[in-house]
Amino acid sequence: MMPDSPNRTGLRRILLAALMAFPLGCLAQDDLVWNALDPENTVYLELQEGTVVIQLNPVFAPKTVEHFKQLIKDQFYLGTSFYRVIDGFVAQAGDGSDIDGTVADKPLEAEFEIDWPLEPEDQEEAEGWKPMSWTLVQKDDMFAPFTGFIDGFPAARDDDKAGKVWLTHCPGIVAMARNDDPDSGSTDFYIVIGQAPRYLDRNLTVFGRVVWGMDVVQRIKRGPALKNGIIEDDLERSWIKQVRLASSLEAARRLDIYVADTNSEGFVKMLDGRRDRKQKFFHHKPPRVLDVCQVPIPARLEKPWVPR
Amino acid sequence: MMPDSPNRTGLRRILLAALMAFPLGCLAQDDLVWNALDPENTVYLELQEGTVVIQLNPVFAPKTVEHFKQLIKDQFYLGTSFYRVIDGFVAQAGDGSDIDGTVADKPLEAEFEIDWPLEPEDQEEAEGWKPMSWTLVQKDDMFAPFTGFIDGFPAARDDDKAGKVWLTHCPGIVAMARNDDPDSGSTDFYIVIGQAPRYLDRNLTVFGRVVWGMDVVQRIKRGPALKNGIIEDDLERSWIKQVRLASSLEAARRLDIYVADTNSEGFVKMLDGRRDRKQKFFHHKPPRVLDVCQVPIPARLEKPWVPR
Repeated sequence: MMPDSPNRTGLRRILLAALMAFPLGCLAQDDLVWNALDPENTVYLELQEGTVVIQLNPVFAPKTVEHFKQLIKDQFYLGTSFYRVIDGFVAQAGDGSDIDGTVADKPLEAEFEIDWPLEPEDQEEAEGWKPMSWTLVQKDDMFAPFTGFIDGFPAARDDDKAGKVWLTHCPGIVAMARNDDPDSGSTDFYIVIGQAPRYLDRNLTVFGRVVWGMDVVQRIKRGPALKNGIIEDDLERSWIKQVRLASSLEAARRLDIYVADTNSEGFVKMLDGRRDRKQKFFHHKPPRVLDVCQVPIPARLEKPWVPR
Repeated sequence: MMPDSPNRTGLRRILLAALMAFPLGCLAQDDLVWNALDPENTVYLELQEGTVVIQLNPVFAPKTVEHFKQLIKDQFYLGTSFYRVIDGFVAQAGDGSDIDGTVADKPLEAEFEIDWPLEPEDQEEAEGWKPMSWTLVQKDDMFAPFTGFIDGFPAARDDDKAGKVWLTHCPGIVAMARNDDPDSGSTDFYIVIGQAPRYLDRNLTVFGRVVWGMDVVQRIKRGPALKNGIIEDDLERSWIKQVRLASSLEAARRLDIYVADTNSEGFVKMLDGRRDRKQKFFHHKPPRVLDVCQVPIPARLEKPWVPR
C-alpha cells in the first residue's frame, strides 16, 4: 500500500526505545487489578466504523439503564444514526424524536445525581451497609469541590457530607439527550467526543461510558459545527448496524475485556505518579493537580474478536 | 447505501428544530469578526484520511516555525507517518528519529514560553509599542493563574506582571516532540487529540494549531495505549501524503478559511454566554467558569476545495 521508505529503519528502532519516550504518565500496569465487565451491563454498539463497547451504570442511573436495555431488546436503534455530531463536543444518535419534541417513547425521569450514602445511624439498618467506593482525584477542580472515580466512572461530589455525587461529562461518557424539561429524555443518546463539557454535569443523565473502541467513536462522521452538528444528508451519517447486550450472546462469543479497578492500590499509585511528575523530562514541574477527565482508565482485550 | 428507514421523517423534522436543541453554547456568529489566514503561516497536511489545516504561530515559536517551514520545503515529511498515536492523548508523526535518540536534524532550542510584553519605560523605545492582544477566559483554572486567547491561540499566563505567557496543550494544538533535554526537539511533531494534557504546558514547544480538519485528525489510526501508542505494522499507520505551505500554492488554489477573531467583541460575548448559562435548559446552574480548552474557536470554509 505504501512504498518502503528510508525511514523504516528509524521506525524499527522506535520500538526498542518506545517506553523511554515522551512520558504518557507511567501506566504502572503491573500493579493494576483488572475487572471483567458484567455482561448484563455491557453493550456492543456496532457501526460501519467498528464496534464500541459501553459499560452501563445502574447505580447512578437505574431507570435509564433499564429503559436503554429495553430499547436494545426491542431493536429500537436499528435503522437509526448519529445525526448530530460536533467535533470536539458530542456525537448524538437515535431517531431524532427527542430534539424535535415528538418524543417517541415515554419520557424518562432525570437521574442527574444521587445522594452520597451516609452510614445509617440505626444499628440494625447499618447491618450490611457498605460505603460507596471512592478514589479521590482532585479537590476544587473549578467545576466541583471533589472529583474522583467510582468503580471506573469519573465522578464528582459537592462538599456537603450529606451531599450529592454525580458522573462527570468526560470524553467517552454516554448520556441521554433531552429537551428543556429535565424529565424529557427518551431514546436519543450522546457520547462525549471532545474536551470535557463539564458545564453539563448534573444537567443530563450520564448512564454509561465507552470502555473500548473510543477510536471507533472518533471516526463517526461529523456535522457542520455552525449548523449545530446536524447532518442533513442520510448518506453522510454514521448508521447503527446493531446494538446488543453482551449477555444476549453466548459467553464464548463475548468480548473478553478487562478494565482497571479504579479502587485498587495500583490505580491510586498511577494517580500519584501523574500528580507528581518525577521524570526528568519535566523541565518545568507541573502543578500537583489532576483533571479527572485526563486520567486514562486502562482497558485490555484478551483475545481478538470479530463481530458476527 | 442505507435503506430508507422509518425514522427518516423524524430526522427531517430535526432540521427545523435543530437550533432549539441541547445548547452548544450560543455561537453568536453574527457578531463575530472573521480573519483570513496568513498563507505564509498556514500548512496543508494531507493524509489518506483527508486534509488538515494548521495555523503556525511565529510569535511564540519563531525558530520552530522557521525550521518546520524549511522541513516542509525540503519535503522532509514525505514518506513519514503517524507512528505513535494514543487515543485521547496525542498523534505523533515524523520519522521517529526524535524518540530513538538518533536525531536526524540539528536540535531545536526550546520555545516553551515568552515574556509578557511590558510597556517600555523609555519614551523612545515605547514608540510603536503595542500591547499583546489578550482575551481573558479564566482566573485560577487549576493549571495557571490566568488563561485566555492570543490571536486565536489558547494561552496561559502566570500572575507576575513581568511574567511569562505560553500556549496551552488544548485539543488541536501542534507541538514538537523531544527527548529529556529541553533543546532536543527536531522533526517529529504531535497533535493533541484528547482531553487537554495541560501538565505538558511549558515543557514542549507549541508552534501551531489545527484550524480545519480536526475530524480528519480524529480518524488517524491509533496504536495500542498499553504499548505507548507505537504502531509496529507500517500498514496500520496513517501516512503523510503531502505537507505544503499555503503560500506555495497559487492564491486561487488555496483553501478559503476564516477563523473567528478571539479579540473581537463578538467572541468576548460568546465567552460570556458560555460562562453564564442563562438558557432554561440548565436545571442546575453550572459554576461561572470556563475551561480555555473547551471553548470552540469558530472557523468556516467559504468554498469547497479538493486537494490536487
